[in-house]
Amino acid sequence: MPVITLLTDYGIKDSYVAEVKGAMLKISPDATIVDISHDVGNYDIESGAFHLARAAPYFPPGTVHVGVVDPGVGSARKPIIVETRGAWFVGPDNGLLAPAAERLGIESIWEINNGDMLPPKVSDVFDGRDVFGPAGAHISVGVPPDRLGTEISDMVRLPAYTPRLEGDKLYAQVIHVDGFGNLVTNVTYETLEEMGASGDTRFRVEAGGVELDLPYARRFSAVPKGEPLLLVAGGGYLEISVNQGNAAEHLGLGKGDKITLHLK
Amino acid sequence: MPVITLLTDYGIKDSYVAEVKGAMLKISPDATIVDISHDVGNYDIESGAFHLARAAPYFPPGTVHVGVVDPGVGSARKPIIVETRGAWFVGPDNGLLAPAAERLGIESIWEINNGDMLPPKVSDVFDGRDVFGPAGAHISVGVPPDRLGTEISDMVRLPAYTPRLEGDKLYAQVIHVDGFGNLVTNVTYETLEEMGASGDTRFRVEAGGVELDLPYARRFSAVPKGEPLLLVAGGGYLEISVNQGNAAEHLGLGKGDKITLHLK
Amino acid sequence: MPVITLLTDYGIKDSYVAEVKGAMLKISPDATIVDISHDVGNYDIESGAFHLARAAPYFPPGTVHVGVVDPGVGSARKPIIVETRGAWFVGPDNGLLAPAAERLGIESIWEINNGDMLPPKVSDVFDGRDVFGPAGAHISVGVPPDRLGTEISDMVRLPAYTPRLEGDKLYAQVIHVDGFGNLVTNVTYETLEEMGASGDTRFRVEAGGVELDLPYARRFSAVPKGEPLLLVAGGGYLEISVNQGNAAEHLGLGKGDKITLHLK
Repeated sequence: MPVITLLTDYGIKDSYVAEVKGAMLKISPDATIVDISHDVGNYDIESGAFHLARAAPYFPPGTVHVGVVDPGVGSARKPIIVETRGAWFVGPDNGLLAPAAERLGIESIWEINNGDMLPPKVSDVFDGRDVFGPAGAHISVGVPPDRLGTEISDMVRLPAYTPRLEGDKLYAQVIHVDGFGNLVTNVTYETLEEMGASGDTRFRVEAGGVELDLPYARRFSAVPKGEPLLLVAGGGYLEISVNQGNAAEHLGLGKGDKITLHLK
Repeated sequence: MPVITLLTDYGIKDSYVAEVKGAMLKISPDATIVDISHDVGNYDIESGAFHLARAAPYFPPGTVHVGVVDPGVGSARKPIIVETRGAWFVGPDNGLLAPAAERLGIESIWEINNGDMLPPKVSDVFDGRDVFGPAGAHISVGVPPDRLGTEISDMVRLPAYTPRLEGDKLYAQVIHVDGFGNLVTNVTYETLEEMGASGDTRFRVEAGGVELDLPYARRFSAVPKGEPLLLVAGGGYLEISVNQGNAAEHLGLGKGDKITLHLK
Repeated sequence: MPVITLLTDYGIKDSYVAEVKGAMLKISPDATIVDISHDVGNYDIESGAFHLARAAPYFPPGTVHVGVVDPGVGSARKPIIVETRGAWFVGPDNGLLAPAAERLGIESIWEINNGDMLPPKVSDVFDGRDVFGPAGAHISVGVPPDRLGTEISDMVRLPAYTPRLEGDKLYAQVIHVDGFGNLVTNVTYETLEEMGASGDTRFRVEAGGVELDLPYARRFSAVPKGEPLLLVAGGGYLEISVNQGNAAEHLGLGKGDKITLHLK
C-alpha cells in the first residue's frame, strides 16, 4: 500500500489537515497517511524543512512526502514535485523540500502546472488540499510526474544547513530546539566523521559567550543527570543535550544561535 | 477500504480517542480512520459542528463521520445516525451533526436503540467508545441503519449558520477563529454568488464599531503583507483575513461577533 | 491487517513519532498504526503506564502495543517483549508496560537482544525508532519472540496501582487527572464489586482534609451540573468527577493525592 507523509503548519485544532487527507483518499484510497508534524510554527519554512529532512530517510522506498509551509500561497511561487533516490517530495518551491531532497539525492524536479489533474477550487488559499495533496496522491498511485506538469532545472535551496570548517574549527549553528530542549545543530554525522571525531572525542564548544568542554558520546547516560554533552541523535545531526534535562534552558541558547566547535 | 472520520472534544493527551479507534477496528478491521479534530473546545457543540461541516465535503463518497461533543452524555439526548447524499454521520442529537448533514443533503435519520449490536458497558459516560464509534464502524462495513435502530422524523438543528440578507446588507457573524487568526463567518460561497459578488467586488464591513472598505479576493497576496481582506477560504465560508497576519488580533474580533457586509 | 499502537512522551511537534512509524512500516507495510498518546509528560512512566492500561483492553486480539517512555535509554535497562492473553507489549523494562500487561494476563516475557533483526544505528538515544518500533513491527507480522531475543523470568512492576482495603475502608490514590479534570483513582471496577458497591451506593470520601458524601453513579447527570460524584468511567477505574465541571479544580486535588473511601 502507498505511504504518504504530511507535514504542515496548519495545527491540529482546525479541520485543514483532515481536508487534505480526504482529498488524498479520494485519489489514493489505499494510502497509509502518516503525520510528520503539523506544528512547525506558522510560515516557518526552515523548521518545516528540518523536520522533513530528519524524518524522510526512515520511510519505506517509494514514500511520497507532501510538505506545506507556504507563506506565498496564491503568489507566483511554483508548486513542485521532486523525484529523489527512493522517495518523492511535493510542495511549494520555497526551500521547504530542499534539505530533505538533497539528503536523499535529487533526480528530477517538476513544476505542477496541469490543472486537469487537480480538483476545482473556489479560491487560491488552500493549495495543500487543492494542489499538493492531490498531486502527491496521484504520484503515490503511480501517475508519472509528466502528467502533472513539466520538468524544470532547479529549485529554491535553503542556506544555514551547511556549517563552515576552517582548520580544526567548525562554525555551526542551532537549526532546531526539540520538545526536550535538545539543541540540534546543522552538523551532520558525515561531517563529524570527516573531522575524525569518534566515540571518545571531546570538543571545546563556544556558544553564547561561554566556553564548554564537552564529551561526544553515544548515549545521554555518558554524563551524570543534569550535565551537558554532545551526541548525534536519531536524525543524524549533532545535538547539544543535557542528560534527563533541558539543554536550551541550561545553556540559554536557542534556534539560530551560532556555535563554534574545536576538536580537542 | 472504508473511511471513518472522528471528531471529538477529548483532546489527545488521554487515551480516549485511541479507545474509540480500538473499538471501531474490532468491528471494521480494514478501516482507514482520519482525525478531523479532537480539540474543538470541551462541550463546544457549535465549534465541533463547524469543523465537521467544513471537512465533510472533501471526503470520498461513503465516508462515515463519527462526531462526539456530548455534554448530555448519559441523559435523554438521542444517539443518531444521519444518512446524507454521499456520506453518513453518527453522533449525539444535539446539533453537532446538523450543519454538515444539511450541507450534504439529509436523506434519513435514525435513532440508535438496538443495544444488541453494541459492546457491553460498565457506565454511561463514554458513548464515543461504547455507542457512536461501534455504530459508525458497523455502518462502514455495510450494516444497514435499521439493524442499529429505528427511523425518526427530525434532528436538533443549530441556529447561527444562516446570515440574514436585507436589501444589499448582509447581517452575519463570526462562527470560528482558526489557528492563523482568520475570522470565519457564516456566509457561504453560495450566498455571495446570490448577492452578485465576484472577483473584483469590494465590501463595506461594519464590525466592532469600526467600518472598513475591503476587497473580496481569491488570494491573500491581493493585498500587501499585514493588510486585511475578504476571501472564501477552502471550506467555502467567507473569511476576514490579514495577508501573512492575524485578523483576530488586527481587528480585535472573535467568535460570536456580529458583522455587517454592504456590497459596494 | 496488523494493528500496532504507539504511546510515547515524544510530543507531536517534532518528527520523532513519524520516524518510529516509518521504521515500523518498512517491516510491517500493511499495519494500521494507532496513536494512544504522545503527550504523557516527559519521562513520566506512571502516566504512560496508566494510559496504556486503560486503552489496551479495547483493541482487537493480536494488537501489538509499543510503549516508549524511557528515561533510561542507553543505560542497562532491558528492552522487552511481553506476550499476554490477546495482545503483545514492546518497550523498556521500567514498569511502563506492567499495569497493562497484568490487566490482560502475562504469558511470557522476552528480552530483546538479537541485533540482527534491528536496523543499524549511529547512537543509542532513540530506541523507539531503532529497537522498540522495529521489534513491535516484526511481532505484528508474525515473527516469534525467540527470533528477537531470549525469554526472561520477570519484569519491573509498578507500585501505586493496588489500593489497600481494611474493613470497610479503602485506602486509594489519584493516579491520573484527565483533560476534563476528572480525578482517576487506582480503584478498579472489580474491587468495587468485591466491596459490594452497586448503583445506589454512597461513599464517604476523605481527601485533602475534606470529607464528602458522594453517590456512586453510572452517569454524570445523576447529580446537578457543577456537583461532584463517583463513577467508573470508560477505562474501568473509579473517578471523582463533577457533572460538566472540573473535579481537580473543584476539590483542589491532583495526581498522587491520597483518598479514603468508606462504604456507607
